[in-house]
Amino acid sequence: MRLADTGELQLLERLKRRFRALSGGKPGLVVGIGDDAAVIRPGRRQMLLTTDMMVEDIHFDLRWTTPFQLGYKLVSRNVSDICAMGGSPEYLLLNYAAPAKTDLGHFDRFLDGLACAVEAYGISLIGGDMSVSVKTVLSATVLGSAARVIKRSGAQQGDYIHVTGWPGDAAAGLSIMRHLRRPIPLETGVVPKTHLPWEVIEPLVRRHLMPVAVSPDGFAKHATAMIDISDGLLMDLERLCRESGVGAKIWSDKIPISRGLAAASRLLKVAPLELALGGGEDYELLFTSASDTISGATCIGEIVRAGVKVLDPLGKHLKMNTKGYEHFGI
Amino acid sequence: MRLADTGELQLLERLKRRFRALSGGKPGLVVGIGDDAAVIRPGRRQMLLTTDMMVEDIHFDLRWTTPFQLGYKLVSRNVSDICAMGGSPEYLLLNYAAPAKTDLGHFDRFLDGLACAVEAYGISLIGGDMSVSVKTVLSATVLGSAARVIKRSGAQQGDYIHVTGWPGDAAAGLSIMRHLRRPIPLETGVVPKTHLPWEVIEPLVRRHLMPVAVSPDGFAKHATAMIDISDGLLMDLERLCRESGVGAKIWSDKIPISRGLAAASRLLKVAPLELALGGGEDYELLFTSASDTISGATCIGEIVRAGVKVLDPLGKHLKMNTKGYEHFGI
Repeated sequence: MRLADTGELQLLERLKRRFRALSGGKPGLVVGIGDDAAVIRPGRRQMLLTTDMMVEDIHFDLRWTTPFQLGYKLVSRNVSDICAMGGSPEYLLLNYAAPAKTDLGHFDRFLDGLACAVEAYGISLIGGDMSVSVKTVLSATVLGSAARVIKRSGAQQGDYIHVTGWPGDAAAGLSIMRHLRRPIPLETGVVPKTHLPWEVIEPLVRRHLMPVAVSPDGFAKHATAMIDISDGLLMDLERLCRESGVGAKIWSDKIPISRGLAAASRLLKVAPLELALGGGEDYELLFTSASDTISGATCIGEIVRAGVKVLDPLGKHLKMNTKGYEHFGI
Repeated sequence: MRLADTGELQLLERLKRRFRALSGGKPGLVVGIGDDAAVIRPGRRQMLLTTDMMVEDIHFDLRWTTPFQLGYKLVSRNVSDICAMGGSPEYLLLNYAAPAKTDLGHFDRFLDGLACAVEAYGISLIGGDMSVSVKTVLSATVLGSAARVIKRSGAQQGDYIHVTGWPGDAAAGLSIMRHLRRPIPLETGVVPKTHLPWEVIEPLVRRHLMPVAVSPDGFAKHATAMIDISDGLLMDLERLCRESGVGAKIWSDKIPISRGLAAASRLLKVAPLELALGGGEDYELLFTSASDTISGATCIGEIVRAGVKVLDPLGKHLKMNTKGYEHFGI
């Protein structure tokens, strides 16, 4: 059965049924899915709003991305922007456009992935819109709140630069998927046959297909400025520096390189540092702090007066062969 | 110059420059466009959230829709959903996906239309996302507030049914545009040569190309249930009745038919009532009230126990040849 055979109202009913149980719990929710607009009773905290798109053949390739992973990643990308402001996500709105020939099962698996992420982040789906389209185009809006907001613009000279997790893993995961060219349904716990040992590359592939947004809870109180890595560590650091009116030096030997990234880099014939600094979609948090030691993050550099430079262990300026990711640069 | 030659950052800068002056005025706005998420300080009123898509060749045809009109209509469609809950729109988030070959001038005219609507409704653009795509896919999220929310579910037996404006005008306007098959840049005050006198069909074409959302201010205090007409009067009335657990009878001779719709219907060889009851995208307000006389709206029927029927002046049930508009039914 295809979406075109179903009708918008039935699809909406399907979606409402799927999410009713998940969305009921929020005390601030007055009206959820199904009216002209959702209604919430805001608390006293500041509210955060972000929206983000995922376009077929630009942001994802349906030849190797399962619908479950699409739904999951759509939520994570948006939640990550809320985390990057030091906030907690609360509500989600969805826009879903897909070809009329899309299988109804594909739509259901997409909702499964969406629901899985919605539960993982403790948020509620409260509205959205659906349409047919030539290619799949998804967008989501996430609403969150924060007692204290951490902007990109707060970095000061002398601050230290920290990053969570393993930057470059997602880019390596994407490269591996481009080699494999087939879906890896991580959501079912499958162990595929691959060149490199699966336990080595699984974290890379997972970071690309089903990234988990990083909670700012341990870092927010120390951070002076924060951004999430969506278009590459270096490009996003440059954005943070531009907004703060400062520069940065990065110590190349301090960049955390995962065991998987090191192994995959050899196979992919690319320097691990290039992927770690230039690879997009890590959804790790990059932040500055007066402190050089923050539990759960790695200190990778320092805020300076101007210019963004990567330095080798001898202090020599490394020219990086990386530009990050611009969605109109394709 | 094409979007692909510009780069996402420059496009974002362009957008920020265009909207900075317009977005500065909101007292509740803490962080606008340019960080990971927008930040607002909510008031004590309930907040309304809605999101809506416009997909090329489904919701609009670029052969006869100017980019200005697209931008304007995208905002109106979303604002209309806020109005339909009895609310006031406040903030806007934009998702813009368009082919890489799109002319930069087209993008600028789109922003002009968006800005025109943003000013007309007194709202602020506070965030968004941009991407390339095969076809143009737009979506917007609008955030509003209301002291009292009017849901679809409040209609009671004995209530009267009211509608604002001239239902069917937008559908007639679309039919006229399908005949003309060329852009009518209403935004420049042009008077095109047409079969029917321009002053007769101008309101129809305008309602389709550049609809203005209807403020609920005069109606909200009287209304027991409300919805905006996006998919056709009859289909949207059925939705309101389903949510309220009631039925409706509509008096066919009370449906307001504009002079333009009457004239265009003869040309289009379709009964005006069919367009008025089945035509989508009117963005008029349809509401129920204990009162049968509401200034600025027309009383067209009554809420009954069950079933939605259209009655002729003799009380005979009219079978309507109209199903309204479903976006997956194409």
